[in-house]
Amino acid sequence: MIMTDRPTGFALALGLLLLAAAAPAASDEGIWPPDQLGALDWPALKERGLALGPADLWNDADGGLLRAVVNLEGCSAAFVSPDGLIASNHHCVYAAIQEHATAERNLIDLGYTAGSRAAELPAKNARVLVLERIEDVTSKVKAAADSAGADDLARTRAIERASKELVAACEQEPGYRCSVGSDWGGLRYRLHRSREIRDVRLVYAPPDGVGEYGGEVDNWMWPRHTGDFAFVRAYVAPDGRPAPFAAANVPYRPKRWFALSASGVRPGDLVLIAGYPGRTQRYLPAVAVERDLTWWYPRREEVFGDWIAILEAAAAANPETAVRVAGTVKSLANGHKNAEGMIAGITRNGVLPRRRAEEAELRAWIAADPARAARFAGVLDELDAVYTRERAMREKDFLLRLFPRTGVVPAAATTITRWTREQASPDLEREPGYQERDRARLLAALERGQQDLAPAAERQVLADLLRRALELPPDQRIVAVDRLLAPALEPGADRAAVVAAFTERIYAGTKLTDLASRVAMFGTSRRMLAAGGDPAIGLALALEPERLEMEARDKARDGALARLRPKHAELLIAWRGGRVYPDANGTLRVAFGTVRGYSPREAVTMAPQTTLAGLLAKHTGKAPFDAPAALVETAGRKDFGRWAQADLASVPVNFLSDSDTTGGNSGSPVLNGKGELVGLNFDRVFENVAGDYGWSPLYSRNVMVDVRFVLWMLDRVAGASPLLAELGIGPPAP
Amino acid sequence: MIMTDRPTGFALALGLLLLAAAAPAASDEGIWPPDQLGALDWPALKERGLALGPADLWNDADGGLLRAVVNLEGCSAAFVSPDGLIASNHHCVYAAIQEHATAERNLIDLGYTAGSRAAELPAKNARVLVLERIEDVTSKVKAAADSAGADDLARTRAIERASKELVAACEQEPGYRCSVGSDWGGLRYRLHRSREIRDVRLVYAPPDGVGEYGGEVDNWMWPRHTGDFAFVRAYVAPDGRPAPFAAANVPYRPKRWFALSASGVRPGDLVLIAGYPGRTQRYLPAVAVERDLTWWYPRREEVFGDWIAILEAAAAANPETAVRVAGTVKSLANGHKNAEGMIAGITRNGVLPRRRAEEAELRAWIAADPARAARFAGVLDELDAVYTRERAMREKDFLLRLFPRTGVVPAAATTITRWTREQASPDLEREPGYQERDRARLLAALERGQQDLAPAAERQVLADLLRRALELPPDQRIVAVDRLLAPALEPGADRAAVVAAFTERIYAGTKLTDLASRVAMFGTSRRMLAAGGDPAIGLALALEPERLEMEARDKARDGALARLRPKHAELLIAWRGGRVYPDANGTLRVAFGTVRGYSPREAVTMAPQTTLAGLLAKHTGKAPFDAPAALVETAGRKDFGRWAQADLASVPVNFLSDSDTTGGNSGSPVLNGKGELVGLNFDRVFENVAGDYGWSPLYSRNVMVDVRFVLWMLDRVAGASPLLAELGIGPPAP
Repeated sequence: MIMTDRPTGFALALGLLLLAAAAPAASDEGIWPPDQLGALDWPALKERGLALGPADLWNDADGGLLRAVVNLEGCSAAFVSPDGLIASNHHCVYAAIQEHATAERNLIDLGYTAGSRAAELPAKNARVLVLERIEDVTSKVKAAADSAGADDLARTRAIERASKELVAACEQEPGYRCSVGSDWGGLRYRLHRSREIRDVRLVYAPPDGVGEYGGEVDNWMWPRHTGDFAFVRAYVAPDGRPAPFAAANVPYRPKRWFALSASGVRPGDLVLIAGYPGRTQRYLPAVAVERDLTWWYPRREEVFGDWIAILEAAAAANPETAVRVAGTVKSLANGHKNAEGMIAGITRNGVLPRRRAEEAELRAWIAADPARAARFAGVLDELDAVYTRERAMREKDFLLRLFPRTGVVPAAATTITRWTREQASPDLEREPGYQERDRARLLAALERGQQDLAPAAERQVLADLLRRALELPPDQRIVAVDRLLAPALEPGADRAAVVAAFTERIYAGTKLTDLASRVAMFGTSRRMLAAGGDPAIGLALALEPERLEMEARDKARDGALARLRPKHAELLIAWRGGRVYPDANGTLRVAFGTVRGYSPREAVTMAPQTTLAGLLAKHTGKAPFDAPAALVETAGRKDFGRWAQADLASVPVNFLSDSDTTGGNSGSPVLNGKGELVGLNFDRVFENVAGDYGWSPLYSRNVMVDVRFVLWMLDRVAGASPLLAELGIGPPAP
Repeated sequence: MIMTDRPTGFALALGLLLLAAAAPAASDEGIWPPDQLGALDWPALKERGLALGPADLWNDADGGLLRAVVNLEGCSAAFVSPDGLIASNHHCVYAAIQEHATAERNLIDLGYTAGSRAAELPAKNARVLVLERIEDVTSKVKAAADSAGADDLARTRAIERASKELVAACEQEPGYRCSVGSDWGGLRYRLHRSREIRDVRLVYAPPDGVGEYGGEVDNWMWPRHTGDFAFVRAYVAPDGRPAPFAAANVPYRPKRWFALSASGVRPGDLVLIAGYPGRTQRYLPAVAVERDLTWWYPRREEVFGDWIAILEAAAAANPETAVRVAGTVKSLANGHKNAEGMIAGITRNGVLPRRRAEEAELRAWIAADPARAARFAGVLDELDAVYTRERAMREKDFLLRLFPRTGVVPAAATTITRWTREQASPDLEREPGYQERDRARLLAALERGQQDLAPAAERQVLADLLRRALELPPDQRIVAVDRLLAPALEPGADRAAVVAAFTERIYAGTKLTDLASRVAMFGTSRRMLAAGGDPAIGLALALEPERLEMEARDKARDGALARLRPKHAELLIAWRGGRVYPDANGTLRVAFGTVRGYSPREAVTMAPQTTLAGLLAKHTGKAPFDAPAALVETAGRKDFGRWAQADLASVPVNFLSDSDTTGGNSGSPVLNGKGELVGLNFDRVFENVAGDYGWSPLYSRNVMVDVRFVLWMLDRVAGASPLLAELGIGPPAP
């Protein structure tokens, strides 16, 4: 690991803490940053079949294998050839497939196999981030934070400012993308510098009937039979520097890439999963777990459930609407199922009572030693107080936060009003997310909105939000809504009718349903925007002061947490002893797991592997169980090539392990003990949704596509021999 | 078995066929009538743990154990004490519980434990049929059928007439209920004579949170944790004869009853299931399987799916409607899920290709022998032709048949118009189902309709049916609909609007939404009814001629089948050799099975037992997983009493076996090899829905409540010691 920043005394002390391996890792829990790998129990890992040492995975000299793990549009992915070939999930490159699909040649249904390099299809918006350096910037960020004094809002702003400065300096050289991530809510800050490859091309995608086999029905489910894999290639300018798509570009030559294992995995095998997990909540205080369990997820379940019903009713009445709202419904349904899974899982895993018991023990442990009592005095109470304070405005903030999610028009109005507002400030003083470096991303989002636009349907969702706002308690009123919908508050008023008329006026008058207008308004000045009188913009402007107040509340809370959470982390680390990993934060991590089944509930046992036989058994010929004819035919005559597993008498399709993963791990390479690719991670089981709050030996299972299914598809179904050759898979021995 | 009819030469030959045990039973397939039990492989059954012989189960001298198996409102049930105590399913006595539930004392939620005989609650409409005699009436019915000559419609009418005469003679003595059932579609006819007990009282019902635990979510599912049991008692007049409820009535003293086993079952144990299975389709020709798989179930799935959506939308808009349509939605949802399960299961089990292959073999086998060729010539082709002919009018008939199912009003209109029509004929000439003996049942149905009445919602269902009728092909038009909705057929007409206006007029004008009017119209004459001008009656009258034509088509088909199916059965019996059982037809049967789990699909293994631990794990406190506090508390502190199974370390709740069951087996007593009650059957697994078309060793699993859960509930939760004492369960040994 490259560390240009000299460790501070504090970081040194922390390092010692992290290395204080008091007890060997008792389980497969843990999402480990590369710089903590050395502290793991390598003899034990070796005994489980790991033939690599920590330096093989990550080192400062020649890099290490993990350099082959990249970030692809929020997914994880991996180089698998010296010519920049990248393996990831089908669902991670779906937009690229969609971009090239036409009515005549529907690549979504058909899949795509590039016959040559020239036939590889450019993916307009896809970006690959190749991590090159991780820099400890704790001292810089902490110094800035401390300079802010006691004001928690000022603390957050100072941390943001320091981060923006670090990022700006880091991105000065073109072709780089940088970010500052905090571990344990601010115990450490690290600057991640990645090469940003902007010419990404689709090499191979299976048909939708493979890549999304099982669709929403099987989403989060096991047993699974989804071939959720695809290949893209990274291209750079002939001089080796990242550049936009150009015919003259050449394949990027990564420093490291993974070899594919042709022999796959067996139950009990050790696997490593590397990638960019997004967010976990492993160290959340009980009061915050309680908030999530009893308020946050139930509220989401309720509101999303109602919105899904509204959109589905609109879809049932009109086939065109059905197409347009499909994506939104899918996203809401995912959030709804996630909320359900969280509530069920946090309950089943007993997270809340356990966290409460831990905190009681922790308090006793602190009190038992005067030095500890002095060092950690008040930290638990103060944390509790932060989360308790949140309650005062949470119903109001919940609705304000959801306003842009009610539809394409409110989302665009929010983005545009905020963007034009931030334009007035120098770049480094703008709100994160609204700097120059965000312009392309925001414009792309405004553009993408067009395909989801269904004004008559989303208007009803907005109306639902406004009706809820009218029912807020007296001390949490949204003043702007009360003003705009004053007639609804009069005694005896027909609230629903007033709200309906209001939203009808908004949608009748707004130009934001037109893509060109959205882009034009994004480019205009704040003054011109306000003068334009668009009613949706008017609504966003009216809500803005209260949304800004909410942001200030959020930032004040975050500032308090940035004060308290590092202390809380030190406390937990000191108390637990041994190896402790930080929560996921979107940065590179490794998890070590075992291929194993599970029992989701009494009387049910799940084996950890599925095969083509099970895939065929699910095939109905109707989506989402509509496997392509070539697959059905090839699997039907048991043309398994070299890819069958003898004891299963078929080609393995998906498998489970107890590796510690979360959202963002989609597309993660799954490695065997030799560091060879044996699969690609793409999902978790439903019982593991709540794993974000705590890894469970019983229920934490992630779902992967087996490399032998990938190779079988390329070899026996797609006949993609050049791709196989590039992957190092030659013709079978005679 | 009591046979008053002398076996004909034919029946004797058949008997020999049935006894020609060529091969030992290779599986647990088979739903055996009592008179075929002797032909089974008793040494093999003994080896599996059966300590009884065929005569222990059924004999003419002292009856046999199966005399304890009764019919309770279409369910199966069993005497479990010499004082007429009957065990069955909670869902089989649900109406009785509902009848006594009040807002203040909601017995559905609370359950009910009668503290004494006097506290047992009369169930107004419940009837218990105690089978006393099975009489072979083949020769009588066949003689009548043959006298009808070549006309298939006349043949059906002759069979109906002969059956009605047999039933009337059999029921001459008061207190009896009789029915004629045919085996193999007419190879044998048997008259079943049962004592009809009309004073049935509720003794014990668990709370809904036990008896219906899991509700619709777990319906057809495994693992299951439903305490679907209840106890009622049969009462008769002091002279021992059946009588309506009267305080002076005394408990009925059955000839036989089952002892309860306190030790339950283990995986691998032999079990016997006795009861009144309704209908199976084991010998259906391929052409009819194809009809069901590709047309009948898909059409039901589609239409019921749309109706559910209509009713759910209406329910979402209005809470009162929600309550009223709940039952109808539940019934449609059951039909919908059943159709889905049938399509999936018939496909998965490969019923159609196997049946086709069998028929090809069968044809070859017939052709290979001149005697066979002469005997069975044409039977397969003629059967095919019968089912092929059906297609000509099937879309029209499908809708005509569904008319009464569109709502309470169309159902009442259909019943009333038909009843008044049939009143004009002497009782024995009326349509079966509309004789004097059916009056009480029809009136009860008219009364029950009131709780499902939601005119604004069901009007839309009727509209859906009429819109479909307007889209029928030219050669299958419903003439009455075309006439009544002529404006909808004009070019450019807004069909939906015309249909909506028509149904609005019907519902605005009809008196059938009023219970008293329904009963009054049921009692009036045909002439008065027609003169009354009720628009819903008018619609039913308009449809009547075409519904009568449909009935004539049905009867002609049935007449043809009554000619062909016996020959087909002889063919199958001759070809298969060995033991062959007839399809279920609502008469007493026994199945022999093994307690065993299964694999519903690749990678999933189901154990055959669930316990209180799994019940508690499902408990969310929200319906349908809202177990009563007393249960949760008692199970939570592991107060298992004597009822735990050591290796499970808990009380077993439900279990699976591969016994051959179908609808009507609800409430069936499940016996161990000694003939002791070890459970009550209440459901099948989803994969076994299609078992009606063929028993499958892999997927045919029925779901039972374990007697130890029943006893644990009575002992540890309900504290029902008098009931336990009556069941022969004394206090535990000190």
